[in-house]
Amino acid sequence: MLRFALLGAGRIGRMHADNLARHTGAELACVYDVAEAAARQVADKHGARVADTVDAALSGDVDAVLIASSTDTHVDLIEAAAARGKAILCEKPIDLSIERVEACREKIAGTDVPVMVGFNRRFDPTHRAVRDAAAAGEIGTIEQVVISSRDPGPPPRAYLEVCGGLFRDMMIHDFDLARFVLGEEPVEVTALGSALFDANARDLGDIDSGMVLMRTESGKLAHVNCSRRAVYGYDQRLEIHGSEGMLRSGNRRATEMDRWSKSATACREPLLDFFIERYADAYVAEIDEFLAAVSEGRAPSVGFEDGRRALLLADAALESLKTGKTVRV
Amino acid sequence: MLRFALLGAGRIGRMHADNLARHTGAELACVYDVAEAAARQVADKHGARVADTVDAALSGDVDAVLIASSTDTHVDLIEAAAARGKAILCEKPIDLSIERVEACREKIAGTDVPVMVGFNRRFDPTHRAVRDAAAAGEIGTIEQVVISSRDPGPPPRAYLEVCGGLFRDMMIHDFDLARFVLGEEPVEVTALGSALFDANARDLGDIDSGMVLMRTESGKLAHVNCSRRAVYGYDQRLEIHGSEGMLRSGNRRATEMDRWSKSATACREPLLDFFIERYADAYVAEIDEFLAAVSEGRAPSVGFEDGRRALLLADAALESLKTGKTVRV
Amino acid sequence: MLRFALLGAGRIGRMHADNLARHTGAELACVYDVAEAAARQVADKHGARVADTVDAALSGDVDAVLIASSTDTHVDLIEAAAARGKAILCEKPIDLSIERVEACREKIAGTDVPVMVGFNRRFDPTHRAVRDAAAAGEIGTIEQVVISSRDPGPPPRAYLEVCGGLFRDMMIHDFDLARFVLGEEPVEVTALGSALFDANARDLGDIDSGMVLMRTESGKLAHVNCSRRAVYGYDQRLEIHGSEGMLRSGNRRATEMDRWSKSATACREPLLDFFIERYADAYVAEIDEFLAAVSEGRAPSVGFEDGRRALLLADAALESLKTGKTVRV
Amino acid sequence: MLRFALLGAGRIGRMHADNLARHTGAELACVYDVAEAAARQVADKHGARVADTVDAALSGDVDAVLIASSTDTHVDLIEAAAARGKAILCEKPIDLSIERVEACREKIAGTDVPVMVGFNRRFDPTHRAVRDAAAAGEIGTIEQVVISSRDPGPPPRAYLEVCGGLFRDMMIHDFDLARFVLGEEPVEVTALGSALFDANARDLGDIDSGMVLMRTESGKLAHVNCSRRAVYGYDQRLEIHGSEGMLRSGNRRATEMDRWSKSATACREPLLDFFIERYADAYVAEIDEFLAAVSEGRAPSVGFEDGRRALLLADAALESLKTGKTVRV
Repeated sequence: MLRFALLGAGRIGRMHADNLARHTGAELACVYDVAEAAARQVADKHGARVADTVDAALSGDVDAVLIASSTDTHVDLIEAAAARGKAILCEKPIDLSIERVEACREKIAGTDVPVMVGFNRRFDPTHRAVRDAAAAGEIGTIEQVVISSRDPGPPPRAYLEVCGGLFRDMMIHDFDLARFVLGEEPVEVTALGSALFDANARDLGDIDSGMVLMRTESGKLAHVNCSRRAVYGYDQRLEIHGSEGMLRSGNRRATEMDRWSKSATACREPLLDFFIERYADAYVAEIDEFLAAVSEGRAPSVGFEDGRRALLLADAALESLKTGKTVRV
Repeated sequence: MLRFALLGAGRIGRMHADNLARHTGAELACVYDVAEAAARQVADKHGARVADTVDAALSGDVDAVLIASSTDTHVDLIEAAAARGKAILCEKPIDLSIERVEACREKIAGTDVPVMVGFNRRFDPTHRAVRDAAAAGEIGTIEQVVISSRDPGPPPRAYLEVCGGLFRDMMIHDFDLARFVLGEEPVEVTALGSALFDANARDLGDIDSGMVLMRTESGKLAHVNCSRRAVYGYDQRLEIHGSEGMLRSGNRRATEMDRWSKSATACREPLLDFFIERYADAYVAEIDEFLAAVSEGRAPSVGFEDGRRALLLADAALESLKTGKTVRV
Repeated sequence: MLRFALLGAGRIGRMHADNLARHTGAELACVYDVAEAAARQVADKHGARVADTVDAALSGDVDAVLIASSTDTHVDLIEAAAARGKAILCEKPIDLSIERVEACREKIAGTDVPVMVGFNRRFDPTHRAVRDAAAAGEIGTIEQVVISSRDPGPPPRAYLEVCGGLFRDMMIHDFDLARFVLGEEPVEVTALGSALFDANARDLGDIDSGMVLMRTESGKLAHVNCSRRAVYGYDQRLEIHGSEGMLRSGNRRATEMDRWSKSATACREPLLDFFIERYADAYVAEIDEFLAAVSEGRAPSVGFEDGRRALLLADAALESLKTGKTVRV
Repeated sequence: MLRFALLGAGRIGRMHADNLARHTGAELACVYDVAEAAARQVADKHGARVADTVDAALSGDVDAVLIASSTDTHVDLIEAAAARGKAILCEKPIDLSIERVEACREKIAGTDVPVMVGFNRRFDPTHRAVRDAAAAGEIGTIEQVVISSRDPGPPPRAYLEVCGGLFRDMMIHDFDLARFVLGEEPVEVTALGSALFDANARDLGDIDSGMVLMRTESGKLAHVNCSRRAVYGYDQRLEIHGSEGMLRSGNRRATEMDRWSKSATACREPLLDFFIERYADAYVAEIDEFLAAVSEGRAPSVGFEDGRRALLLADAALESLKTGKTVRV
């Protein structure tokens, strides 16, 4: 039984709290949030204590932290938790600044606490099955990867202001997913993007629509197409092409119903609205993996270095977008 | 080059005329129809002569007849053509009366002209691929067959008055298809039916919605569900279950487009409207088979006896509907 | 919080115990099974007490019973629970004998305990969505229903000996599903069946493959095709045809992956193996409904009478199979 | 009736000859090929005359030329035909050199013969339906386009040596398709590519796997992924994302069969092998459009300028690949 401190009691923190509470191998021991009322609500729901400081949250009775606070606090919390020897499960991204990420890496290098970054795609049953089949050689040598990543709608301006932009906020998942399925590091990145429909993105110098290409040292190619808007729902697809075939990961819907009428046939319902619904199973499996890694004394399958690598790719995409050059990572 | 007399220049006759005209192994030599203007129109289009009597149509310069006239004339025309030694391709059904069919069988028994009955389902590329895979043992021993057969809308009253009813007019195709894929004769038949939406069918004592079950001597089971109405188009499906799996034949659409919107996803267009469009390839393949059989001096793969057997099953279904008993064929 | 006694700690009982334990509105208070070790295992897992008799199980501290014991015990347990005023959730079927079912109905008529029969299909998200859309008029007037119901493989002989045969054991779910989606009672039933592959079924005079047709008073038609074997997994499909279109309920798989190779494309994985997996969500939703009904003081949406009606249809199918007649219910 | 000279009697020329011969509005008058035997074979099949020189082919009795010879001859043949006032239907690409293309443009500027370039994708029923729906505003404002373009296998070395490379030979179709569906000119192009599996491509400095991104002036984005190898068949897909939804163009197969077995379900057959089969309908529709344009005295819907624009994009992609820069067109 691993006892957790939950740091951050917003939307995603509450979801993690529910998963920890239901898990037979985990216990939600305490909750901390800068907004104490938020922390209290979650703590009360699950019979946990409220910590009024981070220090209090990291007290002796917890074994691990789940960091679900705002991105700019992640590095400090990782360092604090590592210093206390707590196992760390941190929501993505580690930070928006590669310098801060690398400084953090230095600081925690001496400790040997398990650190896991919450890249949920890796734990989605379908993405994972596709990747595992590819890794097992089912389609021979991997040659190309195509990822579709489309949010149902643009976020509020306040979120856009602090999120680090499309590449570091949204597509960072896809950079990680590409690395996960390619089994190699991309070394070249080129990108194009536009602010097509979201006035906030335009005002802030961000984009709402982006496309990226990547190439690994051995020549494998990967593409991500990304949009902050898809009226038909949260669209998350992956295809992997190899010398012996193709594997695809499609979207799951709430039901398997289809409709036939005078005007259209075989119609399915819209996709699940967003990540909490779509990756519900993934978030549970993520905690399974974290618990397994801690109990087996091994590194989690997706760690700090994966977080850093994905950020490097996001930064490279941004640089390519700004300079009009293919960037070498 | 086989020279054809086309007997009957209505909708389906015109379609056959086009196919004969395009076929490199066939020639449309003459056209006969009780309505001479109709015959003339088809003949003029394809540079054929108009015959003003059946006798004239069956003159020395034709090798074969394609019978596409009204059902009640089929038997007389088959007998006339057989007497003249012409190869015969006759639209289904042979006749609505099993007695007339059997009398015809007696009369033409002495001749050895090739006789083929136009059961188009057997020549549809998908139905045929499914049947061939099953016949080749791909799903082991066949156990069950499920056929869906739904017209886009009810026919005019005048047609209903002479067509012989749902089982003999429409479902006769499905009885043949069941025999084709089962590879065994059904020996038990039971049926239910209703006039649910077509006032003409109700007035005439016919049904517009029907379901049938069949069982072969060895115990294989088959089901047909049938309706005179499907607003989403002409629905023609088949599934075969065997000891090692299932094979399915689906509907073909005009394009492979799908549509995704706020309200529905992966929507395909409605099905092709009706048999001329849906079975276009089948009608061509049917003529291929007829020409091949004639040129190879063998019986066509679907002959007079198949026409008779399908009618027996249709009659059995009708008897079951009326008597409330499972009928032994 | 409703406190349950679980009566029967076999495979399906254990599954229900897990669901009750996880449910925020339910509590597993005690477990009874004729095999005390089985009861103890489940009770220990969830911190419940073991009852060594039915009487002990029905003591004051429980509000409801979940009956998951062998079919022949259901009626006695229902009567005992009703006499003690416990709300009742009973696995299907109520009993194999319509006489016993009707006698039970008499006995519990005076009590007003809520009684729910566990017809899981009604709670499957897709079947339910399809039925709800049809009931809401999305496809106009319902005309035909087609149900496919295929188990992954035949049960052991010992099970076959007591299960009441294909119609009462397996297809009873489909009779209920047909009633559920038709919104009318079938009044005519005809059936065909065979023992095609299961020597046990043949020895016992049972069938392993069956097909049924039904007709309601207003003329709606329904078909069920059923087999004890489908090598590709547990196949559970439904289609509803109406005056304005068709609605279909398809099978859910573990993932949304598809595979493309030299020999085949767009291949999906086999279906989930059996009911525990396929209807996992349905079993949870079933308990939701039971709890809601009890707390709202209303009858559950699927009750004793539904259990009786489904059995009447199963008996009618069996009679039709034996007599070769369409049976009026 | 338009009388054609066919210039080039190779594989694609023979296919066009068949289509012309079958077309009611066209006649194949003569055939020219540098290999006279090839010309003779096609001419004999269709009762056309053989021309032993280009001049002879362009004699008075022909109204139009269909240029299906090797790419390096296209420009000369276009100029010769234009000088004689013959309508021109030319296979893609116009030439591999943008300078030659532009010089040709100058030379034929004075003539007003209709010139059409054979970009078959535009005439594929599904691609066209998708584009037409998008152009009609069905998905609101177009935002992104994703094109998959994968050949079944690499071409022979001799072909690779003269084809101009992946971008100008193969992806040129996709550049045209992107322009067709975007309804705007791409102005920025970036590309990555690799020679992953084809030793000939590697030897020749070509690539066998390529990915491109494009951006229009208004900010719309397009992606093409391209490979010389797809073991499951010729893969040609398109998706268009807009403010109100997505439209997709999928692959058509020979049949609508699917297969279910112990190991996989809903399996479809491999895709059609290559362009002659996949775009069979498109090639016919292409001739329809050419005939319609000529008879209506209007420019064909896809002309010389479209050929030039597609080549400009291919050249830009190649430049981007070589320089590591996003190229402005």
